[in-house]
Amino acid sequence: MTSAHRRPVPLAKCYRLLNHGPTVLVSAAHEGQRNIMAAAWAMPMDFQPPKVTVVLDKSVWTRQLLEGSGTFVINVPTVSQLDIVETVGSTSGLEISQENDLDKFKAYGLQTFAGDIVDAPLLEGCAAWLECRLMPEPHNQNQYDLFIGEVFSEGHWHFEGHDELRTLHHVAGGHFLVIGEEVVGKVLARSND
Amino acid sequence: MTSAHRRPVPLAKCYRLLNHGPTVLVSAAHEGQRNIMAAAWAMPMDFQPPKVTVVLDKSVWTRQLLEGSGTFVINVPTVSQLDIVETVGSTSGLEISQENDLDKFKAYGLQTFAGDIVDAPLLEGCAAWLECRLMPEPHNQNQYDLFIGEVFSEGHWHFEGHDELRTLHHVAGGHFLVIGEEVVGKVLARSND
Repeated sequence: MTSAHRRPVPLAKCYRLLNHGPTVLVSAAHEGQRNIMAAAWAMPMDFQPPKVTVVLDKSVWTRQLLEGSGTFVINVPTVSQLDIVETVGSTSGLEISQENDLDKFKAYGLQTFAGDIVDAPLLEGCAAWLECRLMPEPHNQNQYDLFIGEVFSEGHWHFEGHDELRTLHHVAGGHFLVIGEEVVGKVLARSND
Repeated sequence: MTSAHRRPVPLAKCYRLLNHGPTVLVSAAHEGQRNIMAAAWAMPMDFQPPKVTVVLDKSVWTRQLLEGSGTFVINVPTVSQLDIVETVGSTSGLEISQENDLDKFKAYGLQTFAGDIVDAPLLEGCAAWLECRLMPEPHNQNQYDLFIGEVFSEGHWHFEGHDELRTLHHVAGGHFLVIGEEVVGKVLARSND
């Protein structure tokens, strides 16, 4: 999936893009600097208006950029992007920028495209992108490293016939589980006990 | 996996039980009443001391029970429990208790066992159970339906050779994705551009 294949998702259904718990990539840009990082701790938090929440450690540069700009992107990467996820999740954008005057996008040849409402770059090849406006919550940010965003954008959550778009789910230490087949639950009959 | 097969997980590693984003079942008990519900919006929030967060709508009875008792359990159900997940996620424990003087456990023949620190029942057959003490946060609970718990317990996150323990990941409307195979990410070489 490239930006050319991007299809809008009704805002009331955008929670589905995160509902199954994928590892995400958070991108942000501020005053000419940009970064992208991996985050396993992200989830939907409301349907309408749609909100998401993500945990960002005080040490990460992306956090500074999104606090500066007030916007960020939740990119939902695919199994085809496994090594990109591991790479942006285990390297420091701040170090790269200080040492080489590069950023992670240039250093690793990551293609991006522009969003509709945010400055942050959207990573090509993802299954979904959620453009978010930060809802400032100083207590949650300082006490729990918890950031809340209101969502304005789009993606993909049907994986049948699109194995290359299946999402990654981080366990620990670079080990991920790939999302598998679809099953449908049925409501059980109630016992008469 | 039954309670007899329950193995403790070091608290510093218990985030791994939720890290890949499974749909969970939240159970709670208070003053002789107990309930269990499905929640797709749950995630780890800190490593040490371990914390988790879960979104619980104002309409759900489980929320009242855990606010009353101050404790709850995050049960991580498996693909073998698909219909149990769909059932407890689409029925009302309060209605069942009012109509039939039953609860979801009795009505659907769900087996449970007792936890170490909480009153809430732990559901047999799950891949993991996280016993949690509620950290009261009135603003988050009222504004965002967001509940934060400190974790005290245990489970399982290796699925190879245990297909029956694979976790469920809700998309919408009773459609779930089952977690798939494991892959390992590698850090990319940096380009010289």
